[in-house]
Amino acid sequence: MPTYTFTLEQIAGEIKAQWDGDPNCQISRAQPLTSAGPGSISFLANAQYSSYLPLTQASAVILKSEDANQCPTNKLISPHPELAFVQVLHLLYPKQTASPGIHPSAVIGNNCEIDPSATIEANCVIEDDVVIGPNTWIGANSVIGASCHLGSHCRIYSRVTLYHGVIIKNRVIIHSGAVIGADGFGLTHNGSQWIKIPQVGGVEIHDDVEIGANTTIDRGALENTVISRGVKLDNLIQIAHNVKIGEHTAIAGCVGIAGSAEIGKNCMFGGGVSINGHIKIADGVVLTGTTAVGQSIAEPGIYSSGIGHQKNSAWRRNMIRFQQLDEMAKRLRRLEEQYER
Amino acid sequence: MPTYTFTLEQIAGEIKAQWDGDPNCQISRAQPLTSAGPGSISFLANAQYSSYLPLTQASAVILKSEDANQCPTNKLISPHPELAFVQVLHLLYPKQTASPGIHPSAVIGNNCEIDPSATIEANCVIEDDVVIGPNTWIGANSVIGASCHLGSHCRIYSRVTLYHGVIIKNRVIIHSGAVIGADGFGLTHNGSQWIKIPQVGGVEIHDDVEIGANTTIDRGALENTVISRGVKLDNLIQIAHNVKIGEHTAIAGCVGIAGSAEIGKNCMFGGGVSINGHIKIADGVVLTGTTAVGQSIAEPGIYSSGIGHQKNSAWRRNMIRFQQLDEMAKRLRRLEEQYER
Amino acid sequence: MPTYTFTLEQIAGEIKAQWDGDPNCQISRAQPLTSAGPGSISFLANAQYSSYLPLTQASAVILKSEDANQCPTNKLISPHPELAFVQVLHLLYPKQTASPGIHPSAVIGNNCEIDPSATIEANCVIEDDVVIGPNTWIGANSVIGASCHLGSHCRIYSRVTLYHGVIIKNRVIIHSGAVIGADGFGLTHNGSQWIKIPQVGGVEIHDDVEIGANTTIDRGALENTVISRGVKLDNLIQIAHNVKIGEHTAIAGCVGIAGSAEIGKNCMFGGGVSINGHIKIADGVVLTGTTAVGQSIAEPGIYSSGIGHQKNSAWRRNMIRFQQLDEMAKRLRRLEEQYER
Repeated sequence: MPTYTFTLEQIAGEIKAQWDGDPNCQISRAQPLTSAGPGSISFLANAQYSSYLPLTQASAVILKSEDANQCPTNKLISPHPELAFVQVLHLLYPKQTASPGIHPSAVIGNNCEIDPSATIEANCVIEDDVVIGPNTWIGANSVIGASCHLGSHCRIYSRVTLYHGVIIKNRVIIHSGAVIGADGFGLTHNGSQWIKIPQVGGVEIHDDVEIGANTTIDRGALENTVISRGVKLDNLIQIAHNVKIGEHTAIAGCVGIAGSAEIGKNCMFGGGVSINGHIKIADGVVLTGTTAVGQSIAEPGIYSSGIGHQKNSAWRRNMIRFQQLDEMAKRLRRLEEQYER
Repeated sequence: MPTYTFTLEQIAGEIKAQWDGDPNCQISRAQPLTSAGPGSISFLANAQYSSYLPLTQASAVILKSEDANQCPTNKLISPHPELAFVQVLHLLYPKQTASPGIHPSAVIGNNCEIDPSATIEANCVIEDDVVIGPNTWIGANSVIGASCHLGSHCRIYSRVTLYHGVIIKNRVIIHSGAVIGADGFGLTHNGSQWIKIPQVGGVEIHDDVEIGANTTIDRGALENTVISRGVKLDNLIQIAHNVKIGEHTAIAGCVGIAGSAEIGKNCMFGGGVSINGHIKIADGVVLTGTTAVGQSIAEPGIYSSGIGHQKNSAWRRNMIRFQQLDEMAKRLRRLEEQYER
Repeated sequence: MPTYTFTLEQIAGEIKAQWDGDPNCQISRAQPLTSAGPGSISFLANAQYSSYLPLTQASAVILKSEDANQCPTNKLISPHPELAFVQVLHLLYPKQTASPGIHPSAVIGNNCEIDPSATIEANCVIEDDVVIGPNTWIGANSVIGASCHLGSHCRIYSRVTLYHGVIIKNRVIIHSGAVIGADGFGLTHNGSQWIKIPQVGGVEIHDDVEIGANTTIDRGALENTVISRGVKLDNLIQIAHNVKIGEHTAIAGCVGIAGSAEIGKNCMFGGGVSINGHIKIADGVVLTGTTAVGQSIAEPGIYSSGIGHQKNSAWRRNMIRFQQLDEMAKRLRRLEEQYER
């Protein structure tokens, strides 16, 4: 990746921060406090890491004014050091830029409307009746199904599949290998075998959503699966048919959400969480990693399930006792009653 | 998606159902009871939803005769309302149709037998010695390895990989991103590092199997991994080498089945289930979501494991006690003995 | 797959093993002890399977000298029967061979250095400034991002994505659908919505690593995600940004490792394991399947978590008791105190 060099003063100007130190100090990369060396900029946002500050070898650090006197090097003062650091990352590591136009190896269907500022990379297959908005960029070997509508400034990385009729709004990022709009797992049993229920709903991905690598989002059975504005999904997540996820909810990798679950706004799910089908999770619910949720959660708050790791020998004994737990509880009650008498 | 309009009487004729109401009522889409409006057809199969029936705005409802008197609108009477509804979905939302033939951008190996009624979409790569049966449809950017045999009426969606020598029988559906026939995780340690064991078995996918998006099914080590007739697999499932899954078993998303496990017929596994390697699961076993199965299950029935979610503060306390459970059990026994004496 | 036929004596010569029996016995395939028939070779490495030996129909068995007198057929004596068997598999089932060169349908960027002995299959997209070493083989429809460097003798199967700047050393195997170098899940909240943190680190995959189908390995936030020499990763694994995995660690399918976790050398993780972010796992740690690890593990050993399956009816009762476990522990303590008094 190409990188760029800025002086402390230039960076301060770009991010509109107060600074202190050598205005001509050269900054050409960003590193964590602990591993930064000369030429690097770092940041301190979280008091948890403040012990690393006095020893840092970074050429400059972005930090809050209250931490400034601990800083052994050039400093940039910001009330939100991490947000300021994001701005610096954009300066030092500019994004790859697209070459608008349609690669000659791409296969484009009939009746598509592809904005001239859009980029369609090599070996893409765009089926009939697709609309692609301004500055949207489709990576190599992706397949965009018939009648999909994509808004502006989307970044669809290579090897993404959108099935037919998927609606993608603006500034959506979809990483490689994601599959949006495959059939939901809709089956009914006729007494001897499973009969497939046609999945005739769609998928809506609203503004500013990001979808991780190899994540799958199924189309609705009758209505749409909906991923609301600002939702962030990590890798290898399964979103089943008819699920609705509220605005600005962030979900880490390997989470599975079963059919027709409704997830509130501003939730945070750790990795490996499982959500049962046909339940509702309130706004503002935080689930720690690997929590399995069988029933609806009506109140915001932090919820957990699961068992911490132990040495296998101890765990085996406790695990067997778990299977006797109801009986243990009854024996305990009996003893209490005997004692009371 | 294009849709079609039918009258109540036409639908009744097509699905061979009794009807009651306005024969000329126009139906052009299908919706759930609760959100259906004029022009929509819905169904009631499960008594759990019968309270929604009197208030539905649907133009027609498919239901059992015993529910007919509660229906506020046109009705179609069926002993199996959901199966009848599936028939109506096929009428209202006809499947996409293929354009038989081989897209000029597809790359076809030597010595392939591709039925003239088959469809090979853009940018597919079909390696040598592949056989593809009548009416089978391979989606864009898929890769079919050497010596694969596919039967008739299969629907392989875009961006699927079949490694060499995979056998796919008839009417099999494979969704985008699925990988069938990659090497099993076969390793042996030579004292200093892992040595790869060549995986020389294959994969057989029998009639009427459906495989979800980004699901992986590894080839056998020496013999074949076998997915039997009528099995339905959801998204992001991992099937390891040498696994055998019995007929008509249905498995929800994010399930992992370790090597050489044998799963019976007519099983149902909820999302996130884990199955240990080298074990046997009997026919007719139902596993609720996130159940982890370490040992064989010899009897049909419903099995579960895991811990329900709680507020994090309560969960932490209980979780610590779990790690003392064996000791608690011994203390309880001691108290009981003391009391008996 | 083509196979080859060898005599017992030829095989003994190739693997440098002592033999006993008919030197001209013809061997053309490898099978497990229990299902092997005439023409098959099998092996016995593990005493657990020795009861199958006297009944085997195999034409030859590789085994340790101490098991030889139980063998009813031709035998090859090896102190490491499984390693010897791997050698025989390579004889009987030779690997597919590549056709070096660049398929005319591949799209190659500017300024690439592709060794003439390398193979680039159909419809690959190789972006600018990519280096591909001798005998490396890139499968059909793969996408290799700008400035990636691949060493020699790598086997990248079809439909793999490498994002820009990924470093792949020598003899690395990557299975279909894997995505290496997508953005880590790096977000910071500005009070109203999530702001994406540019992920400007890279990914290093060292010598002799194998990566399973549909596995995802994210690029680092600032520094590199590192998969060390000899690591083996199964299918559908999620490796988050900044993770470091030590040499010769083997990880089974469906494992998730959260950001900045550091995994030691020579670890073994069973399927479905979850590792929290920002923790350290010592060298030589074994985690049984579905173990969830929330905190660092400082000592080698076998660790576990989770709950074994039970009949759903019994499990429900025990699960409810789990939620009362802290209270039960307190009641038990109270009874003990009362008794002591």
